[in-house]
Amino acid sequence: MITKEQNESMTRVGAGTPAGELLRRYWHPVAAACELSVANPIKRVRILGEDLVVFQLRQANDGSSIEYGLVEEQCAHRLVSLYYGRVDAEGIRCPYHGWKFAPTGRCLEQPAEPEDSNYKDRITQKAYPVRKLGGLLFAYLGPSPVPLLPRWDVLAREDGRRWGVIESVINCNWLQPMENSVDPAHLFWLHGGFGADKDKVDASQFAAFGVRSEYKEKHDFVRFEYGIQKVRVTEGLNPGDPPQTEQHPLVFPTMLRLVLGLDVVRAQGYSVVKTFTEEDKRLKYMHNMQFRMPIDDTHTQVFHVNFMPSTQTVTSPDADVPFEHSHLKDKVGGYDFQIVTAQDAMAWETQGALTDRSREHLGRSDRGIVILRRLLREQIDIVLQGGEPMGVIRDAEKNRLLDLNVFHEPFGLLRTALHQNLESAT
Amino acid sequence: MITKEQNESMTRVGAGTPAGELLRRYWHPVAAACELSVANPIKRVRILGEDLVVFQLRQANDGSSIEYGLVEEQCAHRLVSLYYGRVDAEGIRCPYHGWKFAPTGRCLEQPAEPEDSNYKDRITQKAYPVRKLGGLLFAYLGPSPVPLLPRWDVLAREDGRRWGVIESVINCNWLQPMENSVDPAHLFWLHGGFGADKDKVDASQFAAFGVRSEYKEKHDFVRFEYGIQKVRVTEGLNPGDPPQTEQHPLVFPTMLRLVLGLDVVRAQGYSVVKTFTEEDKRLKYMHNMQFRMPIDDTHTQVFHVNFMPSTQTVTSPDADVPFEHSHLKDKVGGYDFQIVTAQDAMAWETQGALTDRSREHLGRSDRGIVILRRLLREQIDIVLQGGEPMGVIRDAEKNRLLDLNVFHEPFGLLRTALHQNLESAT
Amino acid sequence: MITKEQNESMTRVGAGTPAGELLRRYWHPVAAACELSVANPIKRVRILGEDLVVFQLRQANDGSSIEYGLVEEQCAHRLVSLYYGRVDAEGIRCPYHGWKFAPTGRCLEQPAEPEDSNYKDRITQKAYPVRKLGGLLFAYLGPSPVPLLPRWDVLAREDGRRWGVIESVINCNWLQPMENSVDPAHLFWLHGGFGADKDKVDASQFAAFGVRSEYKEKHDFVRFEYGIQKVRVTEGLNPGDPPQTEQHPLVFPTMLRLVLGLDVVRAQGYSVVKTFTEEDKRLKYMHNMQFRMPIDDTHTQVFHVNFMPSTQTVTSPDADVPFEHSHLKDKVGGYDFQIVTAQDAMAWETQGALTDRSREHLGRSDRGIVILRRLLREQIDIVLQGGEPMGVIRDAEKNRLLDLNVFHEPFGLLRTALHQNLESAT
Repeated sequence: MITKEQNESMTRVGAGTPAGELLRRYWHPVAAACELSVANPIKRVRILGEDLVVFQLRQANDGSSIEYGLVEEQCAHRLVSLYYGRVDAEGIRCPYHGWKFAPTGRCLEQPAEPEDSNYKDRITQKAYPVRKLGGLLFAYLGPSPVPLLPRWDVLAREDGRRWGVIESVINCNWLQPMENSVDPAHLFWLHGGFGADKDKVDASQFAAFGVRSEYKEKHDFVRFEYGIQKVRVTEGLNPGDPPQTEQHPLVFPTMLRLVLGLDVVRAQGYSVVKTFTEEDKRLKYMHNMQFRMPIDDTHTQVFHVNFMPSTQTVTSPDADVPFEHSHLKDKVGGYDFQIVTAQDAMAWETQGALTDRSREHLGRSDRGIVILRRLLREQIDIVLQGGEPMGVIRDAEKNRLLDLNVFHEPFGLLRTALHQNLESAT
Repeated sequence: MITKEQNESMTRVGAGTPAGELLRRYWHPVAAACELSVANPIKRVRILGEDLVVFQLRQANDGSSIEYGLVEEQCAHRLVSLYYGRVDAEGIRCPYHGWKFAPTGRCLEQPAEPEDSNYKDRITQKAYPVRKLGGLLFAYLGPSPVPLLPRWDVLAREDGRRWGVIESVINCNWLQPMENSVDPAHLFWLHGGFGADKDKVDASQFAAFGVRSEYKEKHDFVRFEYGIQKVRVTEGLNPGDPPQTEQHPLVFPTMLRLVLGLDVVRAQGYSVVKTFTEEDKRLKYMHNMQFRMPIDDTHTQVFHVNFMPSTQTVTSPDADVPFEHSHLKDKVGGYDFQIVTAQDAMAWETQGALTDRSREHLGRSDRGIVILRRLLREQIDIVLQGGEPMGVIRDAEKNRLLDLNVFHEPFGLLRTALHQNLESAT
Repeated sequence: MITKEQNESMTRVGAGTPAGELLRRYWHPVAAACELSVANPIKRVRILGEDLVVFQLRQANDGSSIEYGLVEEQCAHRLVSLYYGRVDAEGIRCPYHGWKFAPTGRCLEQPAEPEDSNYKDRITQKAYPVRKLGGLLFAYLGPSPVPLLPRWDVLAREDGRRWGVIESVINCNWLQPMENSVDPAHLFWLHGGFGADKDKVDASQFAAFGVRSEYKEKHDFVRFEYGIQKVRVTEGLNPGDPPQTEQHPLVFPTMLRLVLGLDVVRAQGYSVVKTFTEEDKRLKYMHNMQFRMPIDDTHTQVFHVNFMPSTQTVTSPDADVPFEHSHLKDKVGGYDFQIVTAQDAMAWETQGALTDRSREHLGRSDRGIVILRRLLREQIDIVLQGGEPMGVIRDAEKNRLLDLNVFHEPFGLLRTALHQNLESAT
């Protein structure tokens, strides 16, 4: 049984809270790079309960790449929003009295102060490091030394194209989506049978999820270097077919790495599907990574990065990536259940803005959740005792490409195949 | 003078509060039966501060009547909403992992648990009895033994047709509408003169309410077995006409029984009026009962059941009844003052979400309100001391038909006439 | 450094709070007189955290001028809103049971009480004095004796026409707009450069604000009888031109008196501009007074009264004045930055609903703000000690016309010119 106190300490994200301090040891996405432009160089960001603005500097004429900044939204002077400010090649300027800040937070100008004043040297705007990878801008809100930004395979592979999705905000705490990621039993019921007017779902329709006409699955959960590998074994599609295994990791603390059948992807209504090439259409699946960014205690922003192997269209890890918005609800708040992640959002949100785990009744099939909670409490304790939690990367060689070993027999994605693939690509 | 503490204890509806425990000794409507169907078998209900779902089971093929359930909205497993679940002939199934619950709350299935598990036998979803009468589904949220569902005349008479109205939610505590029901003085001012551009209202226009050109009324309030009979004596319509008496009961604790002139009913814009037969059009009045269901401390749902005596069209007490929605406000929140109950809603809501009775100044004309409050405190005390409050019915013979003795001389509805009417019907 | 406690005591407006008691020693506008009419004689008003209704009595037939009342919104009887009441020549009547109140708050009628009752003589509705001047209805919520309603020049001058603006509600505390009024440095940055895609703004475009191609200004702040005169010295428009001085007062505690260039006024989209005469079009500027009425701790209502000297069109100080509404935001809450005061509203609101002054970093250029806060604390102390704060007027002779000595060299508005103007007018 989880007490209310344990529940709070596992979930709350503010600075100084147990989970908040753990979450601050990792990089989190704050925007897609394509959300910023010369015309709209500033975006508001709320992350881990802090109100910030992310911005891109106006490029200097020397051809250097775009530089980004991430600072507190309210100006240190008199708390007016820098969201309405202006950027130049050096920094962001407050709209009220023109104080200007570098991406480091250093105050560069205070135009109305006397010329001989050195007051600006005593002023710092709160600022955080921000880096681009795989089309996302990642931020680090924790203590120094800043760790490396992890080069997960979906972000850093160079043998295909990348595209992304920005979901509408999920109105609940980040841990609810993460628990869902070590809960394979929900696939059959939530995605396989949701809304259907029968108890046993049609096998063919949801075969891409491994959903069969009856619930007969086996699951296992194995801790590994970056989180929890979950293993799901389903029956073959036709009688006599052998069982099939898929293995996807939960990447601790806020990510999910999986593969998605392209039949399912096409049914989601993403406009990118219209641009698929003949080569793309021959694919049975694509790689996917979901980043659940904690906005605050009761809101979560999900970014997806998708990777489709290709010999013709290749996206550099440093390039911008096209992202599209996915609205999980209609204008009056009803879920759009055509979208698989809207089915998930329904489950997560109706558990409550911050679900009361003291009222749950877990079963044997919730073992993945129990393992995740144990891991989470363990890592929180490590941070409380001054240690470094799992998956914080400081070895550049190792970080060239972090292969997450995704394995999916129903799609013919075998471990060796992926390895060969990766080896030929790097 | 009512203190703030007295005000709270008379009004708050949560489990364990003084008024909340009293209210839990009575049946309350949670839906019209026609709100549920095979296509939409589940409805969310918030009642007495508890979030529930009411549902109808899929009918078995044996021709048995529809069975209903009322359970806590959040699944006992991991708190996902059963509103998005599925029903079959036995129960309601959670959309997340397929746990299935009978209307009793018993857990029937946990599909992802091991086959030899008896975990489900240790799980109960909170559930309440629900019964259909007069087209409404009534729930009982109190302690055992469950009392009889009262067969009030408007619900159970068999000598006419029934139809109903579901009003838009009233944004205030339930006691404000109930106090209004022992306050006949407001009829002249609120309904007779509201919005009129003169001090003395036009007698003919509001004659149906007994409103005359000058305020000259007498009132009396008499406790009876089921609540408070209120007596109103108005002047005759024309000079020299004798005074006329009407007598309507407040049925304790949350109901109002009255008769309504059909001229007034026709002006409310109900679409059912278009279906009135020649026989209906000859009626001067109809019977009406209003059920004010406490949603929570500051919201109230009003259901109306109307009964029109008829020799041609007869609704069985067990049959579904057509209900229509009445929107008391427009889209920007302005009251639609064409509707009489919107005039009432304005009065109740502007008193405050839970009116501060410590700031009132009651007069002699508020005697009905004083009597109601005294009765309410007395009944709360009876429950606190372990007794059974007034109007809880356990005698089936007496409950065949609960005649509320409505009496209305201006409509020619005399006590004897009603009695004869009832006698011929039963 | 301002502590959180100091911040509260300087800003909160409720009865019994330090600033709330100070603010109650002054008259504040609650409506434009033209907002009331025979057809719509009642308006809801929230001021200093109190919910009231202002109303105009139905005029008697003796040709007397309109009489106004301002009383608590909720009826003393049972707290129903008088906003839905009716007015006659004597008072306002509650819609629920017809209790009628005079503008003094005296209860005139209780129709449902017995004829011999004297209960009404023991009932008083809370009421405040209300007076019309310059097209606005002003209220006084403080202790007796009621001071004179100040006849500021813009309200009481008789040598021109008057028109006004009612802005959409500002979602922040009143002190944030007032601090802005002793902060001339923001003119260059917020209004001169806002949203521009360059660091140095185009001089010609914002010349009307005294904004030059570089920020080179000098400011001074001088306490005077009614508040703080602020002095701004800007460079001449062309090289070699002498510096130019303007001097506008902040009128303590909630007003700003300034002159506005008509080029700027025309760009605001006010519909009154279409009615300007040839004489009006020859004007370079107009006089303006802004009244920031504290609605409650976190909302402020701004009324503008404008005065355009004219030989042809003259508005009497006692006459109604045309007012128009100015919407600072679009339907989804985005600021309409074409409107200068929307730029200000952005700054004030993003400081926070009640800005946390303990987090600021004031500089030398914030000297006006420091002086205002010192004055505010000093006047709060005077009231706490039973004294009368600055600017409360009790001398009728002095109050004939309160000349605020506005001085603006760039517009050719010299002190002597204004004086002559006023002398010829009075």
